[in-house]
Amino acid sequence: MRVALAGLGVVGQSFLELINLNRSELLSRYGLGIRIVVAADRSGAVYKPSGIRPEELLEAKRKTGLRQLPGGTYMDNVVDALGEAEADVLVDATPTNIVDGEPSYSLIRQAVLNRMDVVTVSKGALALYMPALKESASHRGVHLRFSGTVGGGMPVLAFARECSRADRVEAIEGILNGTTNYILTRMEEDGFDFHQALKEAQRLGYAEADPTLDVKGLDTACKITILANEVLGMRATVHDVKVEGVEGVSVKEVNSARSAGKVVRLVAVAGGGKLEVGPRTLDARDPLAVKLAMNAVRFKTTFSGSHVISGKGAGGVETATAIIRDLVSIKMLRTEAGERA
Amino acid sequence: MRVALAGLGVVGQSFLELINLNRSELLSRYGLGIRIVVAADRSGAVYKPSGIRPEELLEAKRKTGLRQLPGGTYMDNVVDALGEAEADVLVDATPTNIVDGEPSYSLIRQAVLNRMDVVTVSKGALALYMPALKESASHRGVHLRFSGTVGGGMPVLAFARECSRADRVEAIEGILNGTTNYILTRMEEDGFDFHQALKEAQRLGYAEADPTLDVKGLDTACKITILANEVLGMRATVHDVKVEGVEGVSVKEVNSARSAGKVVRLVAVAGGGKLEVGPRTLDARDPLAVKLAMNAVRFKTTFSGSHVISGKGAGGVETATAIIRDLVSIKMLRTEAGERA
Repeated sequence: MRVALAGLGVVGQSFLELINLNRSELLSRYGLGIRIVVAADRSGAVYKPSGIRPEELLEAKRKTGLRQLPGGTYMDNVVDALGEAEADVLVDATPTNIVDGEPSYSLIRQAVLNRMDVVTVSKGALALYMPALKESASHRGVHLRFSGTVGGGMPVLAFARECSRADRVEAIEGILNGTTNYILTRMEEDGFDFHQALKEAQRLGYAEADPTLDVKGLDTACKITILANEVLGMRATVHDVKVEGVEGVSVKEVNSARSAGKVVRLVAVAGGGKLEVGPRTLDARDPLAVKLAMNAVRFKTTFSGSHVISGKGAGGVETATAIIRDLVSIKMLRTEAGERA
Repeated sequence: MRVALAGLGVVGQSFLELINLNRSELLSRYGLGIRIVVAADRSGAVYKPSGIRPEELLEAKRKTGLRQLPGGTYMDNVVDALGEAEADVLVDATPTNIVDGEPSYSLIRQAVLNRMDVVTVSKGALALYMPALKESASHRGVHLRFSGTVGGGMPVLAFARECSRADRVEAIEGILNGTTNYILTRMEEDGFDFHQALKEAQRLGYAEADPTLDVKGLDTACKITILANEVLGMRATVHDVKVEGVEGVSVKEVNSARSAGKVVRLVAVAGGGKLEVGPRTLDARDPLAVKLAMNAVRFKTTFSGSHVISGKGAGGVETATAIIRDLVSIKMLRTEAGERA
């Protein structure tokens, strides 16, 4: 499988390391051999049809820059490089941008035009244009996969598919952002106010220097948009989500919830006519009420009840696992289609 | 798909009701039409190649007995009936028997001999003979599915498969029995001793009149055996599990755990050289530490961290959903194989 990899940050690099670690197992278990033929970062793209070894790519990225990669053809414009490359799958590990979805949006569109399958872990393009992107992928007969956009390495979307099999998922509730959950947990356990808890989260690496997307609930809104489209068949964008962040959550509110056996969490809801994100109180015993930087999602089904899945919702290696999961599933679908043809 | 249904208790009857409710959806979404050609209970079996309508079967079961079912051929010996019937799949909803696995074991063997696929929700035969049963099914080229044996309607085994894709499950920990979890939660929250909590559980229908299998940890041992074989590739039977029940858990133990921010739970563990069931303390914040009659399972993976799934682990309708999930997956595998051939 010839892969064009866009984005060489933490997730892209972890992906390269995982390929190296699991090369023989991916080949023997799934017949999946991954050859990187295009690699792109913010600066441009390098194209090498014979394949770029993960270790030489990591070395070039960390030391000399892509331009110096031996034997590669360098191009400034990544979308053009993608247009010219002979690749089977675009792996999009570029950062999330919820203003215009770029560069992810242009990359995915170019890939679909070229009839390449797409695996993305970037949320912006999907949150803004998911109904249209799914339609054009289906129209061109290409697979569009995005396991890593929700829950990091937790197989949230695959789990939802299982819950839907011979049953119906009617509604989804989720704690989908580790940063805000960490902040709310520290407020609850240490009596911090919002700003103190945010500072702690930043100091310990749970929140970024600019925590806007997280604390305003926008990251969560992107994720519930993706779930609503994929699992409930809604046709929604992030602009359809009613969003409230956690900045207004007071110590008093957290304490009074606590004395009633409850906790305050940033909860995303989809289904039953709702699509919203905001601080809500949950029973402290509710399995959804996870602590610290954990994520959790509840799927309410018609027949088999409510199922909750919880785990670490982020992390470079974890998200890179989701990319590989998607590549494996594409490989399996292609093998079937090939055998059918 | 021609189905031989063995067992017409709560799960078997719920299965019939679910087929009725979802007939058109199963057909349109999965091309799955279910025709019951054999139905069996403790008394014997009725065979009707043209198909037994679910509502007439429920009516016969509840009122006249199977012998009176119009147009059916009645046989006393269920295994013989299965041997003579032209059916594609055995759905085994007979009660769990961990002494000798019967009647499940003979039914599954007969089905495999006839090259019928098998869906079972009965734990005994698997817990006692899983490595051999899997081998003979694979040797005969038939599918053996058992989603409903662990976690009721929660898709625990499918979730484990997802966790294993492009990753490895290294260990499993689970709260796999709702009855004992209910008892331990009431001890913790209401200060009951074991016997008081058990009585409460029996009064409210969470424990059976004979609670032996649950409180001695044997039901949990069956489930962790099934998980260990299926997810970790161990070749184990329930006799390989080191089992301790909850009868010896004292109020003192529960209280001292509580004052340390912990809870006592009946935990099953597989992996890392262990295969055991017994009371253990968990951090109260651990997502595995579910309350009341809930179940939860943690899969520890090599790359993507630990994932916990929790939900209602039992119930007739819920378990019947698992049967339908398995039938759908068999239908999909058969369609692929057919298209390949």
